[in-house]
Amino acid sequence: MAQFELTREYIDNLKTLIEQKDETAISDLLNDLHPADIAEVYEELQLDEAKYIYFLLDDDKAADVITELEEEDRRKFLESLPSEVIAKRFIDRMDSDDAADVLGELDADTQQEVLSHIEDIATAGDIADLLTYDEDTAGGIMAKELIKVKENWSIPTCLRSMRKQAEEVDEIYYVYVIDSNGVLKGTLSLKKMLLSPPEAKIKDILNDDVISIRVDAKQEEVSNIMDKYDLVALPVVDGVGRLVGRITIDDVVDVIREEAEKDYQLASGITEDVEISDSVWVHTRARVPWLLIGMVGGILGSRVVGGFGNLLANHSQLSYFMPLIAAMGGNVGIQSSAIVVQSLASGSMGIDTTWGKLFKEFAIALLNASFLSLIVLGFNYFVGEELALTFTVSFAMFSVVILASLFGTFIPLFLKRIKIDPAVATGPFVTTMNDIMGMFIYLTIATLLYSLFF
Amino acid sequence: MAQFELTREYIDNLKTLIEQKDETAISDLLNDLHPADIAEVYEELQLDEAKYIYFLLDDDKAADVITELEEEDRRKFLESLPSEVIAKRFIDRMDSDDAADVLGELDADTQQEVLSHIEDIATAGDIADLLTYDEDTAGGIMAKELIKVKENWSIPTCLRSMRKQAEEVDEIYYVYVIDSNGVLKGTLSLKKMLLSPPEAKIKDILNDDVISIRVDAKQEEVSNIMDKYDLVALPVVDGVGRLVGRITIDDVVDVIREEAEKDYQLASGITEDVEISDSVWVHTRARVPWLLIGMVGGILGSRVVGGFGNLLANHSQLSYFMPLIAAMGGNVGIQSSAIVVQSLASGSMGIDTTWGKLFKEFAIALLNASFLSLIVLGFNYFVGEELALTFTVSFAMFSVVILASLFGTFIPLFLKRIKIDPAVATGPFVTTMNDIMGMFIYLTIATLLYSLFF
Repeated sequence: MAQFELTREYIDNLKTLIEQKDETAISDLLNDLHPADIAEVYEELQLDEAKYIYFLLDDDKAADVITELEEEDRRKFLESLPSEVIAKRFIDRMDSDDAADVLGELDADTQQEVLSHIEDIATAGDIADLLTYDEDTAGGIMAKELIKVKENWSIPTCLRSMRKQAEEVDEIYYVYVIDSNGVLKGTLSLKKMLLSPPEAKIKDILNDDVISIRVDAKQEEVSNIMDKYDLVALPVVDGVGRLVGRITIDDVVDVIREEAEKDYQLASGITEDVEISDSVWVHTRARVPWLLIGMVGGILGSRVVGGFGNLLANHSQLSYFMPLIAAMGGNVGIQSSAIVVQSLASGSMGIDTTWGKLFKEFAIALLNASFLSLIVLGFNYFVGEELALTFTVSFAMFSVVILASLFGTFIPLFLKRIKIDPAVATGPFVTTMNDIMGMFIYLTIATLLYSLFF
Repeated sequence: MAQFELTREYIDNLKTLIEQKDETAISDLLNDLHPADIAEVYEELQLDEAKYIYFLLDDDKAADVITELEEEDRRKFLESLPSEVIAKRFIDRMDSDDAADVLGELDADTQQEVLSHIEDIATAGDIADLLTYDEDTAGGIMAKELIKVKENWSIPTCLRSMRKQAEEVDEIYYVYVIDSNGVLKGTLSLKKMLLSPPEAKIKDILNDDVISIRVDAKQEEVSNIMDKYDLVALPVVDGVGRLVGRITIDDVVDVIREEAEKDYQLASGITEDVEISDSVWVHTRARVPWLLIGMVGGILGSRVVGGFGNLLANHSQLSYFMPLIAAMGGNVGIQSSAIVVQSLASGSMGIDTTWGKLFKEFAIALLNASFLSLIVLGFNYFVGEELALTFTVSFAMFSVVILASLFGTFIPLFLKRIKIDPAVATGPFVTTMNDIMGMFIYLTIATLLYSLFF
C-alpha cells in the first residue's frame, strides 16, 4: 500500500466533491485509505462535511476511523448522532477496549442508552465492565478479547476452540492457559503449537513463566514492564489471579508516547496536548496559564529586586549580571529536575535513598559551581570590573548553582511523594521560583560585599 | 512470575556470595530472574564481579543479558573477552538485529574476527549485511529472521515450511508472502490460516494491503508509521520491493522512547542520556556544555546591558523588571519551539506552509502579548510606578512575546530544513539568545521613552 500524504490540494479537491455531492468519486477517493489517514482528512473538514463523507464509508471502516479521531472531534461528532446509531454503527463494531474508551468520553446517560442498544448481552457486559476501571490503570487500557484454553485440554481440542475464538479476536499474539477457576496458569506460544506433536497436553507444553499485571496497576507500570521485558501482550489478572483481559503493545505505544510528550510539554510550559495544526484559540488556552504564572513570578521578582533599590541606585552595574544569574539558576534547576523526572518515568531510579541522591547531586553541583564561578571570576577580573562586583557575581553564581541543583532534585522527589506529577517541577513554575531566589541571593551577597569593600 | 525489585540488600547479599565463591547459591539466586533484571543487577557490580557471575549463567540467558546491558557496560565487558568467546557464547545466540547492534559497537577488526568464528556462514552473512546499514535507518533496526512463504504454495506446503522456519524465529507475528523473485506480495495472518480450509492456495488468502518500508528510511519514519497504523511488525523492502527484513514493535518502542527522551533532554540542556544512578562524572559531562553556553550568553548579555550603562545609572528601577522580561522571552520561546519540535517528531504538521504557520503563530502571539502586556500595564499603573517605566515594561513585554514566538517557531523549522535536529531550538542556546534579545529590546524602548518623558 502506498503511503498517504495529506496535502492542501487533496482537501480542496475533496471539499469540491462534497459540494457537488459526487458520492461515487468520494467513495473511490476514500476507500483506498487506511482509517488513520481518513481520520487525518476528517480533522481538516467542517463537521457537516465530515458527517456527509462518514456515511459513505463501510461500517467497519467508519468504526475504525472513529477510534482514530482526536477526542474532541470524536465527542462532537458522536453527540450529533442518536444513541442507536452510535451503538450499531460504531460501538458494536469495535474491540472492547476501544469501545470502552469511546463510550467513556460520553456522559453517563448516553453511555447507558448506547449500551441498551447493543444486541449481544455479553459484548455489552464486557464494555460495561471496562467502563468501571480508571482510565489510567491496566483495567482502563486492557481489552476483553483474548484466546484462552484450559490446561487439561489436548492440542486438537485446543485448536478447535481457538478457531471458534479467533473469529472474535483481531490479532493473536498469545494463547492464554487457565485452570478450571479461570486462574491464569501460563501461555502457549503459537511457535510451540506449530512445533509440538498433536497428542501433547496443554499443561505439558505451556510456558508457566508468564509475566502478568494486576487490573488496578497504573498505566506507567504497564508500559515500563512491557518495555523492559519486550512484551507484545500482557495478561491482566484480578486480585486472586483470574485472567480478566489483555493489553497489547499498540495501546502501550500510545501510553509511552503520551507520557513522554506530557513531560516534555510540562517542561515547556504547555498545559494541554496541542499540535501545530490546532486552532489559535486552543493554542492560546494551552499557553497562557503558565505565562501568567511566569508573569506573576516576574512581578514578585521585581518587588524583591526593588527591595535592594538603594544598592542598585548606587551600583547600577550590578544589574548587568542579573540576567546571567537568573538564567544560570533556571538552567541548572531544569537540568536537575529533568533527570529526576525522566528517571522516575522510566523506573530507573537506582538503589540510593533520597538522601543519597541529594548528596550525589550536591557533589555534581559543587563541581559545576566551582568550574563556572571560576570562569566568570577570571573573565570579570580580566576585563577589569571592580572587585566587589567581580566577587559578587562569582559567589552568587556558586551559591545559585548549588541551591538550584538541590531544589531541582528535591522538588520532583517531594512532589512524587505527595502524589503530584513530578514533571510539574521542570515547568515555568520552578524556573520562576529559581529566578526570584537567584535575584535575592545575588543582591544579598552584593549588599554584604559592597559594605565590606567600600 | 513475581516482579523483581532491585534493593541494596539484594546487591549486598550477592556481593557476599561472590566473595565466598558460593556458585550454587548464586545460580539459585539469578536463575529465576529475567535477563532484563539480571542486567540491572549487573550495573550495580564491579567488572570482575560481573564477569564471575556471567559465566554461571546458561548460555542463552547470558546472551540475552548482554543485549539488555547499557552500551558502555557492554562494550567494556566484551572488550575483556577473546573474539571466539564473543562469537560462540553471545553473538551466535542472538537474533540478527541484536547481534548486529552489539557487534556494531566494537571496532572493525574485532567485528571481522568475531564474524570469522561464527560457524554458520548464512548467519554470519546476515549479520555482516545488517552491519552495513546506518544505525538510525530501517535497515539498522530490522532483523533478518522472518517467516516467508511463496504465493503459489498450498496451505500444507506452507505449514511444513513454516514449521522448519519457526525454529529460527522467536515470535511469529506475520507470515510474509513473496513471489519467485523475492518481491513482497502480502502477508498471511495466523488467524486467516486457522480459519481457512487446507486446500486453499496462499495467493487466494493473502492480504495484499500490506504496509512496508524502504530499507533506507529513517527510524523516526518507521516509528511514526507503526504507531499511526498500530502495526506489530513492519516488513522492510529494498529498492525494487524485495523483502529483506522485518522490524518488530518492541524495537520501535525503544526508538519512540529514545526520541521522546532525547527531545526532552535537549530542551532541558542535557547533552547525553543520563540516569540518576550514573556517576558524578557522567552527570557533569552531560550538564556542563549547555551551562557553559548559557554562561557565555549571559556574559555577552551583560555587555549588551552594560551598553545602556548611563540609562541604568540614572533610572536604576529599570533593572527591577529585567528578570521579568528575560523570563517571559524565554518562556514564550520555549513554548513555541516545543510545539514545532513535537509536531515534527510525531509527523503531525498539518497542511499549512511555513508562511502559514508563522502567520498563525503571529496571531497567537498577538493575542498573548496584548493580554500579558495589558495586565502588567494595569499592575504598574495601580502600584504607582512612574509612567515612563510603566509603558517601557508593557511595550517591551509586547514586543518580546511576539518576537520570541516567531523566533521559537521559525528556528526549529529552519533547523529542520538545514538538517539539524530541531530539538536543539528548545534548549538553553535559544533561551539564551532570547534573553539577550529581550534585554536589548527592553533597554532600547526605555531609552526612547525616557527621552520622550523627561
